[in-house]
Amino acid sequence: MLATSTSVSPRRRELDFQLFDVLEIDKLLATPHFAEHDRATLDAILDAAYEIAGDYFAPLAAELDAFDYKLDNGNVATPARLKTAVRAFIDAGFMGASFLADDGGLQLPSTLSSAAGLVFAAANGSANSYAFLTVGAAHLLAAFGDDEQRERWMKPMIEGRYFGTMALSEAQAGSALAEVQTKAVPAADGTYRLSGNKMWISAAEHDLSENIVNLVLAKLPDAPPGVKGISLFIVPKFLVDADGTIGERNDVVVTGLNHKLGQRGVVNTVLTFGETGECVGYLVGKPHDGMRQMFHMMNEARISVGAGAASLSIAAYEYSLQYAKDRPQGRLPSDKNPLSPQVAIVEHPDVRRMLLEQKAIAEGGLALVLYCAHLVDIAAASTDDAERRNAELLVDVLTPVAKTWPSERGIVSTSLAIQVLGGYGYSPEYPVERHFRDQRLNPIHEGTTGIQGLDLLGRKVRLADGAGVTLLVAAMRADIAAARAHAALAEECDRLSEMTTLLPDVTKTLLQAQIELGPDRALTEATAYLDAFGTVVVAWRWLVMATRAAAAAADDFNSGKLAACRYFYRYELRQTKASLEHLAMLDDSIASVRTEML
Amino acid sequence: MLATSTSVSPRRRELDFQLFDVLEIDKLLATPHFAEHDRATLDAILDAAYEIAGDYFAPLAAELDAFDYKLDNGNVATPARLKTAVRAFIDAGFMGASFLADDGGLQLPSTLSSAAGLVFAAANGSANSYAFLTVGAAHLLAAFGDDEQRERWMKPMIEGRYFGTMALSEAQAGSALAEVQTKAVPAADGTYRLSGNKMWISAAEHDLSENIVNLVLAKLPDAPPGVKGISLFIVPKFLVDADGTIGERNDVVVTGLNHKLGQRGVVNTVLTFGETGECVGYLVGKPHDGMRQMFHMMNEARISVGAGAASLSIAAYEYSLQYAKDRPQGRLPSDKNPLSPQVAIVEHPDVRRMLLEQKAIAEGGLALVLYCAHLVDIAAASTDDAERRNAELLVDVLTPVAKTWPSERGIVSTSLAIQVLGGYGYSPEYPVERHFRDQRLNPIHEGTTGIQGLDLLGRKVRLADGAGVTLLVAAMRADIAAARAHAALAEECDRLSEMTTLLPDVTKTLLQAQIELGPDRALTEATAYLDAFGTVVVAWRWLVMATRAAAAAADDFNSGKLAACRYFYRYELRQTKASLEHLAMLDDSIASVRTEML
Repeated sequence: MLATSTSVSPRRRELDFQLFDVLEIDKLLATPHFAEHDRATLDAILDAAYEIAGDYFAPLAAELDAFDYKLDNGNVATPARLKTAVRAFIDAGFMGASFLADDGGLQLPSTLSSAAGLVFAAANGSANSYAFLTVGAAHLLAAFGDDEQRERWMKPMIEGRYFGTMALSEAQAGSALAEVQTKAVPAADGTYRLSGNKMWISAAEHDLSENIVNLVLAKLPDAPPGVKGISLFIVPKFLVDADGTIGERNDVVVTGLNHKLGQRGVVNTVLTFGETGECVGYLVGKPHDGMRQMFHMMNEARISVGAGAASLSIAAYEYSLQYAKDRPQGRLPSDKNPLSPQVAIVEHPDVRRMLLEQKAIAEGGLALVLYCAHLVDIAAASTDDAERRNAELLVDVLTPVAKTWPSERGIVSTSLAIQVLGGYGYSPEYPVERHFRDQRLNPIHEGTTGIQGLDLLGRKVRLADGAGVTLLVAAMRADIAAARAHAALAEECDRLSEMTTLLPDVTKTLLQAQIELGPDRALTEATAYLDAFGTVVVAWRWLVMATRAAAAAADDFNSGKLAACRYFYRYELRQTKASLEHLAMLDDSIASVRTEML
Repeated sequence: MLATSTSVSPRRRELDFQLFDVLEIDKLLATPHFAEHDRATLDAILDAAYEIAGDYFAPLAAELDAFDYKLDNGNVATPARLKTAVRAFIDAGFMGASFLADDGGLQLPSTLSSAAGLVFAAANGSANSYAFLTVGAAHLLAAFGDDEQRERWMKPMIEGRYFGTMALSEAQAGSALAEVQTKAVPAADGTYRLSGNKMWISAAEHDLSENIVNLVLAKLPDAPPGVKGISLFIVPKFLVDADGTIGERNDVVVTGLNHKLGQRGVVNTVLTFGETGECVGYLVGKPHDGMRQMFHMMNEARISVGAGAASLSIAAYEYSLQYAKDRPQGRLPSDKNPLSPQVAIVEHPDVRRMLLEQKAIAEGGLALVLYCAHLVDIAAASTDDAERRNAELLVDVLTPVAKTWPSERGIVSTSLAIQVLGGYGYSPEYPVERHFRDQRLNPIHEGTTGIQGLDLLGRKVRLADGAGVTLLVAAMRADIAAARAHAALAEECDRLSEMTTLLPDVTKTLLQAQIELGPDRALTEATAYLDAFGTVVVAWRWLVMATRAAAAAADDFNSGKLAACRYFYRYELRQTKASLEHLAMLDDSIASVRTEML
């Protein structure tokens, strides 16, 4: 360990507040599933995350972003300091944080491992991506791999010896997975031979691990058309003998590197299967079941994208806040004396406004993604069947929201961080332009915002006869009732109360429209619906935060929570109410436009 | 000329519509000031702009963005193709387009030279910057230089032999020009000796011209404190003899290059004066008059920033539109048959929504900046004194709006262009990520958005007892009356009509608050006021466009204008009305936040 840690985000008190005051995750420790842990363990794990993020991840962020990955005879070298950082992460057990003890993991609450992930992602999103992809791939095998696959491929990933990837996209099939053209043909020995290409695959070649386990979507010869014909395969870089010895190189080869606006510290590849030799793959689960399997993992991946987005926003917010406190420039409008000392820019009302908006978005986004992680824990650990089922349904409904809201608002938020720094914010000498570039990918990958809107309005709110929205509204009403104890929150309670009627009403109108007008017309504003839905949910999480803050000592931290909550309701939620009312009108301004008119 | 031109933005019919149908700039040709020109001349000049932009500017844009400027012993080399492009621009007379015939210019209407500038900026903003800076510097000398200075420095700039810069910012003084520390000491021969440093100076070193004329803000030894002590100096790279022969190298030296998120094709420098020798400068006008002079030019520069922003948005919009028409992917939600052919992504409602919003922002922004340029022409050419004065006042009021609205909304708009392209939009293989990066500077340089808000609400709307808003509202009312002839525009007329009452009312409330609560408190939401003001003005320009479209043949172009106008009113203006109503409440949610609470 180095002597001094770089300061990392979120501030520790913020994370403790969210985990222990708002979500009260210590209560999870009373369930059998998490009974091995106590509060001291959780604290120690967060301590370790802050230490490793500060010592190894944060200091490397600018270097990794600027690192020029090169393809050298199929190989890609990574910076030495990345290897050190990743090793520290693995040695502290973070790769296995969320896995069952039986699988070699720490069996920690997802809320806590997500919180640690936020710290790593805020410090260095690209470095964290290598881990995040590996964890996601291993989770998928935990859910769908057979015993042999779990032993041979998953365990070494949990141990950090093998890394993983998700290989979905092809050049002609980004959002449209139905069009996947990669083929898998059965071989005599029960394995498969793959051929084809994948595009935009992160981390499919590097020197950070002994092996790379690619999870690949491909079609069998007898596959039915469309997404129902997709199967999932394990396609390792190196074949592995029955005893775990690394064997021959498999013919899965990186044939090109993609360059990107941001998230440049994780190598992005074009992947080719079986072009010059045999590319061996192993079927996961049953044939033609790949989409269902991938979408099991996809919920997790999408919430993780939202978490990454929230972490970029909090990092940019806290950096720009510190900068604004340190940088003297200008005087207040009332001060006409050019000889008086300049003030720190945080004193300028417009800078303060930009910081408050960032706080509302960034801390609201954190609250949203941690709430979802907490639902995952309840779904896994609750001893009450109904509570478990409800939590599962809420996770399903909230996944597109948790993916999108922090990503889309995060563009606004990181852009404000640049604006606080002015010309310096536009310079790579400061980290906020990197946060802004990195953020721009989040509304695109793992399903674009448009796809998330269709998922929410076309599918998720219809599940179980619309029970998701009913559950959500019931949870909001319970929290409003609790918040009523605090007179200072009366305005917020009234406004969120309105939403508990308006949101279900608008939802019903839009679902009815899908029947009456057909889905093409009725889903025109699915993205606007998703955005409004997300703002209502985040407003609710802000009310819960404010309720805890109002009940606690009136210090600066708690006063700040109350102030940011008020700002969120008066500025963000006000606009959202108008948007929801507008949505219910089924305005045809967009739907009536023909291509030729654009 | 090359055989084929790359397609450039805006589409020619769009520009013709704005110039000749909406602004009717041919009417300017009836004034003595522009009597030398006829419509055929204007058309030919636009033809030339499209040809040069297509042949030389657009094909160079990606190369110039990626060009790695290096400082080599004080020199900076530029790509060969940039020299060719700039030469074509100069040879066609564009450097002198807006200058008086007496000064060697073409004496074209500013509306037309601005329109040509939009075409060049849309094709290659960085290449255009070299020209734009030179034109700005030459305009300043046209206004404030003495005869000898105009002859020696301005004329060669109009001829394209010398290039110019504006050197304002210093490392410790970005927005706060009162803190400028560069010094100028009088020499015995009537010239001055400069010492100090400037930061973020574009184009202060390159090999595109025989000489570089830096216009530098500095302080004389007897300068009063603050902005009232700033003087303006000509500081050439090379001294020039009385007969125009290039003489000795002056000691103004580039000592470093700054790197930036975008607008990377124009070299950005740290400039040092008199560190190793004598740095000769020539005072422009009177001592301590630099701020007034610079701000004369600043109106022009700020409107040009807005124009550059609008050009980036239109380029990104038109590119993403074409991409959406060409790229097949996915099927409509109603089509469950995986064997049916995929549709072009423009058919997806959410993609159409993103294109329509881009159109509303991009073409609205074009209309705003061209309207301002047209006011400049009226101020210069009208034979009616009152009309001239009114146009001047309107330009003053609208400058912060024209600078900011296209810049801030342009971030949204270019971000949507990326989203339309999905993963490809995030790749430097396609131009839209460059548009997005370039756009991010526009809310920062030439006065941040925060500064523009203070300028509008703290100063501009107070000029001449608030006559600016009164004039604006009167102009809107006249256009609403004309629009009433078209039943299809009734809704828009009603909504803008509301604004003609609401905007002045809110303005009055906020001005009164400056007296009652003091400027620090009352200016807290100056940025929100600026944004709302801008949206009302752009809504007005959309109504004027729609009125012309409604009066013309009902083809796709005109139907598109009506559709985008409706979208703008229902989505953008609706939110703005709510913002204005909120502003009038003088909400203290922001003002009451203390630094420690952030």
